[in-house]
Amino acid sequence: MSTVYTRPLARLVEQLQRLPGIGPKSAQRLALHLLKRPTAEVEALANALIEAKQQVGFCSVCFHLSADPVCDICRAPSRDKTVICVVADSRDVIALEKTREFKGQYHVLGGLISPMDGIGPDQLNVQPLIRRVHQTKTQEVILAINPSVEGETTTLYVGQLLKPFTRVTRIAFGLPMGGDLEYADEVTLARALEGRRDLD
Amino acid sequence: MSTVYTRPLARLVEQLQRLPGIGPKSAQRLALHLLKRPTAEVEALANALIEAKQQVGFCSVCFHLSADPVCDICRAPSRDKTVICVVADSRDVIALEKTREFKGQYHVLGGLISPMDGIGPDQLNVQPLIRRVHQTKTQEVILAINPSVEGETTTLYVGQLLKPFTRVTRIAFGLPMGGDLEYADEVTLARALEGRRDLD
Repeated sequence: MSTVYTRPLARLVEQLQRLPGIGPKSAQRLALHLLKRPTAEVEALANALIEAKQQVGFCSVCFHLSADPVCDICRAPSRDKTVICVVADSRDVIALEKTREFKGQYHVLGGLISPMDGIGPDQLNVQPLIRRVHQTKTQEVILAINPSVEGETTTLYVGQLLKPFTRVTRIAFGLPMGGDLEYADEVTLARALEGRRDLD
Repeated sequence: MSTVYTRPLARLVEQLQRLPGIGPKSAQRLALHLLKRPTAEVEALANALIEAKQQVGFCSVCFHLSADPVCDICRAPSRDKTVICVVADSRDVIALEKTREFKGQYHVLGGLISPMDGIGPDQLNVQPLIRRVHQTKTQEVILAINPSVEGETTTLYVGQLLKPFTRVTRIAFGLPMGGDLEYADEVTLARALEGRRDLD
């Protein structure tokens, strides 16, 4: 296989194939595409890779990805400091920010409790969250964690720890917008019933 | 949108999005994946990009992608020097090499004749092909070019130029292996009938 490509091309295809969702065909397509692009464009991509890796770390307050010691969200004076939304991963912060609905703070746990994988609360940013809730005037902690086995465990664990000190809520689970009762799975429907609200 | 990402991450997502088949969601997924990988791995990818771009040029004989002045295929002593397979692009050489069926030489045109896009024979490696056929003991030129409008034009043009000097053939078009007569389009079926062969 690798003899089909000239060596530097083989290395590039091999590297691209390591990316998630990129198989041998896509890797070849991307590599041949890049070889046809101007050098400046390829260098821009290579530099963006190196710089992102070098410069992006974690916010020291909320553990969201940040190029600064404290992230833009934590620094924004306009945002509500009394509400903290707890998520598993930075990608969840990004997803929530895209809704433009939430104007509070975040806290990224950096994963979910998963004894099978050897991940306990100590491997996650749970202690800093508790300290944060103690030290700031937090009025509500919203747990926005996926409804998986690990997610439920983490939600319960973090919820129990924080309940003595502040109001703890979790996001709603139910029928997605545009969803169809007929095609929803039973667990989703059960959750939707359970989470029913009075019409206002 | 870009305010959702910390700056170096935004730049990386933007660069990844320029790749073919990579939309905003995939770009974000790839970028976040890369930030979680060890620095060495990200650098390996960045270096593979730069090196492939710097080192890979074209074979001076057949115009296939090559890190050397003359490519591995042209240099291989075991390969038949009397048969040249003409293709539009290096990716076609790679596809044919993967079959392990062809043991002759290649010639990459670097595109197809397309007056609409301002691409005539002079923009392609047609003259070097003719010179090559003249200067070497070529016994057969196989045209392996896609059956598109531009492909047909190119096949006819190159075929006419070479016919006085050597045998010129083209690859067969017909029902693909595993294909179904019932679902084949009419043009493919017509080509399959036209290209029928005596049972041996």
